[in-house]
Amino acid sequence: MSMKKYDGKPVGYDRTKITGGFWNTQQKLVRDVTIDAVYDRFDETGRFASLKGDWKEGMPFRPHIFWDSDITKWMEGVAYYLQKKRDNALEDKMDMLVERMEKLQTEDGYLNTYFTTVEPKARFTRRLDHELYCAGHLVEGALAYYEAVGKRKMLDIAIRYIDYIDRVFRIDHSAAFDTPGHQEIELALVKLYQFTGEDRYKKLAEYFIDNRGRSQKDRENNDRDLAAFQSHLPVREQKTAEGHSVRLLYQCCGMADLALLNQEDEMTRACETLFENIVKKRMHITGGVGTTYREESFTFDYHLPEVTTYNETCASIALAMFCRRMWLIDADRKYADYAELALYNTMLSGISLSGDKFFYENPLTASPKRNEFNQTRKEDIREHLPILERVKVFDCSCCPPNLIRTIGSIADYMYSISEDTVYVHCYMEGETKVKTKNQEIELCQKTNYPYDGKIELKTRSEGCYTIALRIPGWCQSYRLSINGEALNPSLEKGYAHLLHTWKTNDCISLELDMKVQLIEANPRVPNLCGRVAVVRGPLVYCAEGIDNPDFSIRDVRVENPSDFQISMEEICQRAMPVLNGPTIIRKDFQELYRFYRQDKEQTNLKLIPYFAWANRGVTEMNVWFLKN
Amino acid sequence: MSMKKYDGKPVGYDRTKITGGFWNTQQKLVRDVTIDAVYDRFDETGRFASLKGDWKEGMPFRPHIFWDSDITKWMEGVAYYLQKKRDNALEDKMDMLVERMEKLQTEDGYLNTYFTTVEPKARFTRRLDHELYCAGHLVEGALAYYEAVGKRKMLDIAIRYIDYIDRVFRIDHSAAFDTPGHQEIELALVKLYQFTGEDRYKKLAEYFIDNRGRSQKDRENNDRDLAAFQSHLPVREQKTAEGHSVRLLYQCCGMADLALLNQEDEMTRACETLFENIVKKRMHITGGVGTTYREESFTFDYHLPEVTTYNETCASIALAMFCRRMWLIDADRKYADYAELALYNTMLSGISLSGDKFFYENPLTASPKRNEFNQTRKEDIREHLPILERVKVFDCSCCPPNLIRTIGSIADYMYSISEDTVYVHCYMEGETKVKTKNQEIELCQKTNYPYDGKIELKTRSEGCYTIALRIPGWCQSYRLSINGEALNPSLEKGYAHLLHTWKTNDCISLELDMKVQLIEANPRVPNLCGRVAVVRGPLVYCAEGIDNPDFSIRDVRVENPSDFQISMEEICQRAMPVLNGPTIIRKDFQELYRFYRQDKEQTNLKLIPYFAWANRGVTEMNVWFLKN
Repeated sequence: MSMKKYDGKPVGYDRTKITGGFWNTQQKLVRDVTIDAVYDRFDETGRFASLKGDWKEGMPFRPHIFWDSDITKWMEGVAYYLQKKRDNALEDKMDMLVERMEKLQTEDGYLNTYFTTVEPKARFTRRLDHELYCAGHLVEGALAYYEAVGKRKMLDIAIRYIDYIDRVFRIDHSAAFDTPGHQEIELALVKLYQFTGEDRYKKLAEYFIDNRGRSQKDRENNDRDLAAFQSHLPVREQKTAEGHSVRLLYQCCGMADLALLNQEDEMTRACETLFENIVKKRMHITGGVGTTYREESFTFDYHLPEVTTYNETCASIALAMFCRRMWLIDADRKYADYAELALYNTMLSGISLSGDKFFYENPLTASPKRNEFNQTRKEDIREHLPILERVKVFDCSCCPPNLIRTIGSIADYMYSISEDTVYVHCYMEGETKVKTKNQEIELCQKTNYPYDGKIELKTRSEGCYTIALRIPGWCQSYRLSINGEALNPSLEKGYAHLLHTWKTNDCISLELDMKVQLIEANPRVPNLCGRVAVVRGPLVYCAEGIDNPDFSIRDVRVENPSDFQISMEEICQRAMPVLNGPTIIRKDFQELYRFYRQDKEQTNLKLIPYFAWANRGVTEMNVWFLKN
Repeated sequence: MSMKKYDGKPVGYDRTKITGGFWNTQQKLVRDVTIDAVYDRFDETGRFASLKGDWKEGMPFRPHIFWDSDITKWMEGVAYYLQKKRDNALEDKMDMLVERMEKLQTEDGYLNTYFTTVEPKARFTRRLDHELYCAGHLVEGALAYYEAVGKRKMLDIAIRYIDYIDRVFRIDHSAAFDTPGHQEIELALVKLYQFTGEDRYKKLAEYFIDNRGRSQKDRENNDRDLAAFQSHLPVREQKTAEGHSVRLLYQCCGMADLALLNQEDEMTRACETLFENIVKKRMHITGGVGTTYREESFTFDYHLPEVTTYNETCASIALAMFCRRMWLIDADRKYADYAELALYNTMLSGISLSGDKFFYENPLTASPKRNEFNQTRKEDIREHLPILERVKVFDCSCCPPNLIRTIGSIADYMYSISEDTVYVHCYMEGETKVKTKNQEIELCQKTNYPYDGKIELKTRSEGCYTIALRIPGWCQSYRLSINGEALNPSLEKGYAHLLHTWKTNDCISLELDMKVQLIEANPRVPNLCGRVAVVRGPLVYCAEGIDNPDFSIRDVRVENPSDFQISMEEICQRAMPVLNGPTIIRKDFQELYRFYRQDKEQTNLKLIPYFAWANRGVTEMNVWFLKN
């Protein structure tokens, strides 16, 4: 594809406000519970205190190399809620943290708790120690806080630090490595460039992206597997998703940002190649990626284990971030299809319905007996298994604040603009002002998506412009009308383009048929042969033992998807559509092995949305069911 | 059950000679190839030289704690072939090794290469270091060699060592532990007791069995998981198969030996309980046990992973050994059914058709891509996977000599006697003299079992006695006749008892219908739901990629077992029955996920006996197939 005429632009949280529906419930939960819950746990574990910079050997709460990023990701998340509604108590906490940062920052601009207080001589000597990753999150947090409330101190701190990093890395080459061991700063630098207009930030992002996989210093500063850190090849030559999944996907975000900014075909193709490899070979149906806990990595094509897969919450967030950048380059509905899979399934599985507990890993099936067995054995003879009950915080607590910031800025996934077209990618209830090439447009969307497929979009701005509505890939029929008048436009890459002279309160009505559907996986996935997943819209469904106590949920055989009845039911006080339907199981028997017999019976299978699993105690869970 | 009237006795290799058929081929291969191949590898790796006892720090080939057992197991195996046919060159090697042992043995009787040459001060201080295990194999090797050729030197050496061990452990309690970290000596001591009639050897066996799980010293001498070494409970209280599979099964052999000798009901029940737990909850259809490489252990009920299972060759040998002891206590056909599963499938999978290469682990499915991926990564980010191509020797080389001795003495599995009954457990072609309570009986068996189900048994001795023929559990119909006259006796625990006044050359003909059959696993085994295994007689079948290159062998759906055609075909110059039949696969497609479609086609699936897999290069393999 040529990019010459393409000019996609994001429409961010600063112009869109979630006002109701699914995501409003989720944002309310995060605002009411998660922000404080994570604050308290970070406080108890000494993370915030570490910013004072007074830790000494022998004291408790030794600062960790990635604690700074935990703090700034939490701050970034808080900023999005402050933007929605200011709050003095929260701002006081933010300002207190900013003040500590100001004091901790050294004369030259350097700012990192761990390396300042624990190993001051090791600054920029160890590539895999998250220094640049923390700097990236500082920038993102600072930009969000400034845009939310207009306070610039944190942003100034971040800029001073980035200027220092620019000197050390791009100008003086005085660090012991050339590119980050954990990507993140690249996309943060693009944001900073877009905010400030300062070319050197884009140059620094390019420096990190372009030198990856080429730097001799990096190779020497990496005693572990080069591919695990995407340092085996220059980025434009990376054809498959290798290594640590979050790192790879943050790298892809940076690559896509630069591809768009620079209108670079080669980089665009590299992004597309990696994207296709992920979604066509290495992604679970839940949008989960990274199938081994070993280095939290991608593995190889068609390797999608159900019990032991890693599927880190942050990796699905990162996949959605990559999708969102890709649809700016090429408005193809597949990007939003995959973003929704990641956001509605694996990302939301990462947070409990109570809002205060989290999964780092999100398996496709849960086997409590296997976990129990592990617990009876000593550490050295256990296997690594995902935990089956969410916990309040982990030592490596990247996911909880990442959930806060992603849910807080979820409206970023609604729209983008290009020339005179407003693209509607993901459906959420909210109010928006977008600026196309020629005018400012106000839009108001009402929907209960993804619980049903009805979307109402009202224009509040007169004028001639195009509204391009995504018809999701899962949708096999839909009805579209303007002010009650049915339309049947042809789709361009899955978008219905409505070029129209709009009046205030014109009402677009879109009704997506949201049937229960069965998905099969490629025959090359060994463990998914003979099995199907049950989905409805972007939601993947699962069975839990607690709802289906009388049979093995791995032994269930589903028949017609249309047999499932959809009904709203509360799970932990949250109403959501659950499915009930007749399915086939084998009659139970006691032998371990017996001659095969056709000895089956019908039973009712109850399914709930995958994101709601593991909220009612430890119980079996399964996504892929048998199918004749 | 009461044991009061039961008097089962083994009929060993010394009275039975394999003369043709399946096992003769296998024994010839071991005699012609394996014995020398293992000798050469042991020689190259310094094992035999280590017996000279002149190793010093800094020299190559540092002796290992279990090398002595490698040597004596090889010697035990050689003894069985010498018994079949003497051979001066082999005997010279044996005598050379015995001479080295004689010189290495210290004044007090102690004999262990590692602890004599490497850590002389550590003698009997570390429970998990295989000292008593090596002593047990010394005894078994010495007894076999004496019985084969009548030379007693090795036996005298072994007895001197055992007398020393008896003093140290049972009389003086002067060792740092009370019972072996790796069971084996228990069953060797029972053999020695039966050979010598010396009560103290039985007492020492009882000492080791009875103190297991009770000794405080053992607990203190065990920094690892107690259950991994069956030291968590006294043996009579162990209800489930825990920990290292070979250790547990050797322990079971010792327990069963003592249960029979002492006519002890409690011990018998303990054996039965462990046996039932293994075969009804923790055994693969191939007779493979020990489902994790972690401590080579049993795990938990219904955990039977196909890719990562361990299924050590030695563990299946040990399972067969346990079965053979159990049928002396209770002549129930199930014991021979399971012994055959273990011997014909997992044990023989342990050795290549060329006789010189070995598997330690025997998975149920092979995924070359997964192994290849592992190879591209550094050690620390690989997962443990079974290798997919047999190798000439391993560092831990217990399996190759264990195969030599087990195949060499395979006739042990044919008969047992009790009062005036000769039990025929496993069918093999061979000539036998057995001694019942009242007479010596000569029997001649001709069969091509397990390739077909015809067995002809001729009596060479006149008299009135019972011949009890096992009708295997897999056999759904059979024809039985004496001198052409059809019989239909009722079965007692699966055995057809023929009480008869036999004349010389009376001919019993048994024809077992050996159909292709499908086996399903219990619905509680998560990964086997929806799948069946294809078996014929005791042989489990598998598909290999090399025979089925055009589709995913995990995606195959089998229909009627009677559709499979059986034909003799050569694999690596060995003729064996292969199966070909129509099966169903999905038509290939490229997407990773798609809406489920009924889009299937018929194809031919070729299956070979499981034991013959992986003899034609690295290729996919699968045992469990889809079934509607």
